[in-house]
Amino acid sequence: MNKPFRIGIAGLGTVGVGVIKALTKNADIIALRAGCEIKIVAVSARNKGQDRGVDISGFEWVDNAVDLARYGDLDAVIELIGGSEGVAADLVNGTLDNARHVVTANKALLAHHGYDLALKAEDKGVSLTYEAAVAGGVPIIKALREGLAANKIHAVYGILNGTCNYILTMMRETGRDFAEVLKEAQELGYAESDPTFDVEGIDAAHKLCLITSIAFGVKPDFGELQVQGISNINATDIASATEFGYRIKLLGIARDVDGEIMQSVEPCLVPIHSPMGIIEDVYNAVYVEGDSVESPLFTGKGAGEGPTASSVVADIIDLARGIQVPTFGIAAKNLKEAPRISMGDTRARYYLRLNVIDRAGVIADIASILKDNDISIESLVQHGRDPDHVVPIVLTCHETRHAAMIEAVSLIENLDSCAEKPCLMRIEEL
Amino acid sequence: MNKPFRIGIAGLGTVGVGVIKALTKNADIIALRAGCEIKIVAVSARNKGQDRGVDISGFEWVDNAVDLARYGDLDAVIELIGGSEGVAADLVNGTLDNARHVVTANKALLAHHGYDLALKAEDKGVSLTYEAAVAGGVPIIKALREGLAANKIHAVYGILNGTCNYILTMMRETGRDFAEVLKEAQELGYAESDPTFDVEGIDAAHKLCLITSIAFGVKPDFGELQVQGISNINATDIASATEFGYRIKLLGIARDVDGEIMQSVEPCLVPIHSPMGIIEDVYNAVYVEGDSVESPLFTGKGAGEGPTASSVVADIIDLARGIQVPTFGIAAKNLKEAPRISMGDTRARYYLRLNVIDRAGVIADIASILKDNDISIESLVQHGRDPDHVVPIVLTCHETRHAAMIEAVSLIENLDSCAEKPCLMRIEEL
Repeated sequence: MNKPFRIGIAGLGTVGVGVIKALTKNADIIALRAGCEIKIVAVSARNKGQDRGVDISGFEWVDNAVDLARYGDLDAVIELIGGSEGVAADLVNGTLDNARHVVTANKALLAHHGYDLALKAEDKGVSLTYEAAVAGGVPIIKALREGLAANKIHAVYGILNGTCNYILTMMRETGRDFAEVLKEAQELGYAESDPTFDVEGIDAAHKLCLITSIAFGVKPDFGELQVQGISNINATDIASATEFGYRIKLLGIARDVDGEIMQSVEPCLVPIHSPMGIIEDVYNAVYVEGDSVESPLFTGKGAGEGPTASSVVADIIDLARGIQVPTFGIAAKNLKEAPRISMGDTRARYYLRLNVIDRAGVIADIASILKDNDISIESLVQHGRDPDHVVPIVLTCHETRHAAMIEAVSLIENLDSCAEKPCLMRIEEL
Repeated sequence: MNKPFRIGIAGLGTVGVGVIKALTKNADIIALRAGCEIKIVAVSARNKGQDRGVDISGFEWVDNAVDLARYGDLDAVIELIGGSEGVAADLVNGTLDNARHVVTANKALLAHHGYDLALKAEDKGVSLTYEAAVAGGVPIIKALREGLAANKIHAVYGILNGTCNYILTMMRETGRDFAEVLKEAQELGYAESDPTFDVEGIDAAHKLCLITSIAFGVKPDFGELQVQGISNINATDIASATEFGYRIKLLGIARDVDGEIMQSVEPCLVPIHSPMGIIEDVYNAVYVEGDSVESPLFTGKGAGEGPTASSVVADIIDLARGIQVPTFGIAAKNLKEAPRISMGDTRARYYLRLNVIDRAGVIADIASILKDNDISIESLVQHGRDPDHVVPIVLTCHETRHAAMIEAVSLIENLDSCAEKPCLMRIEEL
């Protein structure tokens, strides 16, 4: 057997503890697969004394995580601190500068600084890997970067945030509204106490940014991403979608539109029995359209100690085996600044929910605005009658330009009869 | 850019032509991903002059495929001839002997000779890769061998034969019997003129054999595999399964049962909305239970020019990138002769369809045999009444030992009133 592969782990939260557990309980089979022992040499976290349910007394303790970058003779540093700046960024930069491999689960860091870090890793001849950053235990980064490398990718669709998918599933199953279900999800530990990153789509957008980069050979560019969360979706939307034969999913979409890249995270209506429609609860899924492979689908638990640790350890085994692949699938210097399509120029069918005061002429006003913007109504349903009170009107439109739709919604929102912010969602026929 | 990676292709059927097309149309992006040009140097097939829809005039022609093993300065030979013996085996052995990498789609060869070939490849320091051998374009070999390498695998379930899944789906959708649907599938090109390998489960068994080896670190052992096909399933079975809330799927099962390995290909009843129940038509799927990752599911088209070529080319790109992983995930010398569980000792719930002569006492006879074998009936339905003629009786049993079930079915089959071979299927609650 070869000499051990020596690692240091920074961050001993859920994932860090999961990595220690996985490397410990499966040490024998992992050593056989890796071709050598994986040896945890040193660990670092904020609080040395905290009870984490694993014994860390056999590892060297490093007070300042950033020191792991140059600590001892480590082969790789495992960064599980998180955040796009600060300690995590300093540690990853320092480790690469010191020509050591980095394994991370840090999607924010890579979405914001992935290009520079990839350049640095390649310059130093080391790897920067991040399987755990996207879709938890599902090896989708490996699938895109290696398994599907023969393909020109046309599009990737992902359900990338388990918290949102859980909330949307619960809303449908219980008929309750967003706020109530979110509260319950927080109590159950499925949502953070500050849920913004999840429910506003930012976490999914970080992940999509990395997927887009691999799929299309472009620099990760978080700033170019269109992001919309699920907090504006209510029980009427969920019920209406079902009536129309759809499910609402927070979808990450990376799509080649005539050579321009559409990159968007937003709640969409997808057919109930489509590959994305059937993914429920905390499950994640990634659906790929390639020119040879057609339509593989990858799904599984997208978060949690076990699945995330599984991916971190897989990356470590890869490195121990000597497997090195460019961070985003091609040499960083070859990553393009691909043209991003202006979202206004994209076309789709749309779902629109309006809450309006139930009085004569309202629907005529709405229809007139849509007509003036060349938008053709496919169906329109007013749920209930309640003269002079607010009632929801739900409509779907035939395919139209996004910009026209936005303009029309803005005009409708300004009508006296429009009582609440409208809810507009793209319909994706996967 | 590095010097080209030079390959020879043996076999220019559907897959070989697909590989040439994929390497040609995506040459630029593949070169960026691989870090060098992938250069097809030589090709070999039975008939040089045949029109294949691709231009092969730019490649050197080799009359005898086996000669590719030592031809020119190839880096790898792509074996797409097929078959467990003969030219394919000679070519793969010769290529490895000559210390060159082999990429193959040949599941039969690996199921029968995989252990010896893996030893040889490792002895020579080269790779033997076969992503295309299992589940077409879905990179499941890579997922098991690398992406999920952190896990102790508990079980793998696969729908591994698209032809069978198509036939079973069509039987359900049309209510027609096996023979009729098979004939139509043959006319549509979804089934071979000799469908034995597909419908009798042998093709799926070859694939399962490779999955088992990777999942559990054991020598591939085709002889130890329990194989049963779908030709005995009729319209009554399909309709009854639906009534009970199940779909019938030809399932490959590799499962750790208290340290012994169960390895079986057989039609099973799986819940309609389970991960395997929702896989229809020609789609393949692989569902993995690991100790960290829980339950990822991989699905996609399992055959055809594009998907299979996608996987062959992915293997080639891996080699060009310098990625080498042991054939079955660990060094061949470490593969164990793991104990296979005697199928008789496995336990399951069962579905049993009997075609019996409708007369007094028949059900009592059957019930008595089941009781004598300690088998507890869960439900029993006689479809229709037709005194003194043959009618189907469908029953399900609570969990019981396989050996008891086999004994009981054999006794029932010997009853005068039993008019046809019974159909026994395992119920798998995935």
